[in-house]
Amino acid sequence: MKKMAGGVTAPKGFEAAGVEAGIKYKDRKDMAMIYSQKPCVLAGSFTSNVVKAAPVLWDRKIVEESPFGQAVIVNAGIANAGTGQEGYAYCQRTASQAAEALGIPEDGVLVASTGVIGMQLPIEKIEAGVLKLAQAKEASLEAGNQAARAIMTTDTRPKQAAAEIQVGDVTVTLGGMCKGSGMIHPNMCTMLAFVTTDAVISKELLAKAVKEDVVDTFNMVSVDGDTSTNDTLLVMANGMAENEEIKEGTPEYEAFREALHYINESLAKMMAGDGEGATALFEAKVVGAATKEEARKLSKSMVSSSLCKAAIYGHDANWGRFLCALGYSGVKFDPEKTELFFESSQGKIQVYKDGMTAPYSEEEATRILSDTEVTVLADMKMGKETATAWGCDLTYEYVKINADYRS
Amino acid sequence: MKKMAGGVTAPKGFEAAGVEAGIKYKDRKDMAMIYSQKPCVLAGSFTSNVVKAAPVLWDRKIVEESPFGQAVIVNAGIANAGTGQEGYAYCQRTASQAAEALGIPEDGVLVASTGVIGMQLPIEKIEAGVLKLAQAKEASLEAGNQAARAIMTTDTRPKQAAAEIQVGDVTVTLGGMCKGSGMIHPNMCTMLAFVTTDAVISKELLAKAVKEDVVDTFNMVSVDGDTSTNDTLLVMANGMAENEEIKEGTPEYEAFREALHYINESLAKMMAGDGEGATALFEAKVVGAATKEEARKLSKSMVSSSLCKAAIYGHDANWGRFLCALGYSGVKFDPEKTELFFESSQGKIQVYKDGMTAPYSEEEATRILSDTEVTVLADMKMGKETATAWGCDLTYEYVKINADYRS
Repeated sequence: MKKMAGGVTAPKGFEAAGVEAGIKYKDRKDMAMIYSQKPCVLAGSFTSNVVKAAPVLWDRKIVEESPFGQAVIVNAGIANAGTGQEGYAYCQRTASQAAEALGIPEDGVLVASTGVIGMQLPIEKIEAGVLKLAQAKEASLEAGNQAARAIMTTDTRPKQAAAEIQVGDVTVTLGGMCKGSGMIHPNMCTMLAFVTTDAVISKELLAKAVKEDVVDTFNMVSVDGDTSTNDTLLVMANGMAENEEIKEGTPEYEAFREALHYINESLAKMMAGDGEGATALFEAKVVGAATKEEARKLSKSMVSSSLCKAAIYGHDANWGRFLCALGYSGVKFDPEKTELFFESSQGKIQVYKDGMTAPYSEEEATRILSDTEVTVLADMKMGKETATAWGCDLTYEYVKINADYRS
Repeated sequence: MKKMAGGVTAPKGFEAAGVEAGIKYKDRKDMAMIYSQKPCVLAGSFTSNVVKAAPVLWDRKIVEESPFGQAVIVNAGIANAGTGQEGYAYCQRTASQAAEALGIPEDGVLVASTGVIGMQLPIEKIEAGVLKLAQAKEASLEAGNQAARAIMTTDTRPKQAAAEIQVGDVTVTLGGMCKGSGMIHPNMCTMLAFVTTDAVISKELLAKAVKEDVVDTFNMVSVDGDTSTNDTLLVMANGMAENEEIKEGTPEYEAFREALHYINESLAKMMAGDGEGATALFEAKVVGAATKEEARKLSKSMVSSSLCKAAIYGHDANWGRFLCALGYSGVKFDPEKTELFFESSQGKIQVYKDGMTAPYSEEEATRILSDTEVTVLADMKMGKETATAWGCDLTYEYVKINADYRS
């Protein structure tokens, strides 16, 4: 696998665009399109929230029932959630407009929205935006950048990743973009993420690869514990690399999985590190757990704790909070055997052992915790399973952003 | 039932004290004692965290194995959690010192600690504090106030409640105090709380009354979702009212339950409203749920959500966040049927109905949400069960307090 520059337009045959549609923001791009020159097999993963936004209902139907998809229309600013039948009808109108403008079937158009809940989309502006997008779309990396910027809400930077693998003597490319920030928490995927590839792969195998990978990538991210109504991951494969079809159980499938994992993990970490108000990426790593599921629960419990997050913000080696968060994760373990470490590019120290504080230097601990990427490592001494979760610190800025998001 | 002034010293035969022991704070009282002139039957409820502080292990043993208890020694500043065998030995030394000073059995002394995790208690200072407490204790309401102040950590005010009931022609009194603030979340009780009564009641029936009541009072409080290692509720009944023994299934038991509920709910709400950095008490009420357990889950999900809490802080009628929090609670429901209301002393408005926003005035909503006690009411339209949970808003101050708690 080779890492590359770019995002959704890195693979062959994918075009993108970002335009100003004036939906809620002023003077910035707020609608994006991803378009494939050929029909794609689709895979998706959607929010587990009982309250599902209209675009989630629309996309789930397309992914499940349509043989192919060819375009995605995204808007930022309004979530089209809590909008009833009217909101769902607007998904259909958006798709219909895009289908006409692009000359593709309506059931090949996916839609995604992010922003405030409970407000109806200004559908005329959306329809006008779709026409602008259809005109502006391009196969360039820069067009991918524009799309990645247009889907941002409180994100401070666009998030993209791309990689290529060899399948026989053919180069297969994968690319992705996402937006995250607030309302980010496990259980699919509490964000909008889009991954494209020019691989030849069946719908079934693509679905399997995506399903197996999200549990260790997007579902391990928590910004604030809130699982959104709109969380969506869409994966599109257009086959334009013309590789020999990727089959399960082959080295090529493993390479594909590795590249997909790289894209997903990169986007997941970018989301965590750019959580609302964040000053640091907070990585919680668990080793020595009895089962994979327990390792995931333990690491997510740390990364979701307000007190742990505030300690990271304060560069405060208050290891008791991390031990405490492990303790209420729902997993049984022996606190006397557990060991805790802090780690960053500034070094690594043990802080807890044998049921008590380990001898460490507060000064060194503070230096380690002052990095912009900090890892808290828990060794449970119960088995061999590991998991990693990603979050961010809890800051004044988070409160400021969320105390009046709508204004 | 009649509400009264005072706290743990309101019932007959209970004495209290608060003294400066210089454990971690300077120039303030940081140790407290509750002492009963006669032996008490005991009931308790303790943290569900796998990591249990030494005093929790000690008290659970006393409550389960000792026939009677007669004193409680509390310190603020250091939690005596994550302190191994040494920490447990300090519980025993504290109890031993108190037993000697008070002339009671060692296995009749309970201990409780709150504060930073991972630091050992300065046991000489604790032992000296115990002697001071034994000298200072008094049966006055003022002595109860001093104890309620001495157990505070980041609390901004002491928390007490008292009530009396008639059992035949005898007056039975209950009183309580607690400290809360950070690391407060369901599943027992994530705080220190002490309830005293002069009632004659069996240990078994007292345990039953306490167990049934905490699920709807202390366990419905969340400040930040973190279940502490030290959460303890201790209830002591010394029988000095000399009432005819309270028996199950009688009006007297119902009156006792009512008074206990009043004390517990009052303390729980005081804790929520005085959560770290809080400017408002945030009450989440669910009606029309299918089961009691679902009602509890739904209300706790709202009150625990960072985004809901930030909206309360911002006086922002962003009802989508409350709907969203209901949606990821784990309870299945039909969002099209759910209705949402905001309520305070400033009025009540409906904000969500039929899957969409209800027509309401933003100005009125802001006025309602600007109160210091705000209720968000969700009617699930699924059945007849109700539950109420209490929390507080999420503020800059919370982050400030927790970014560097130890210094």
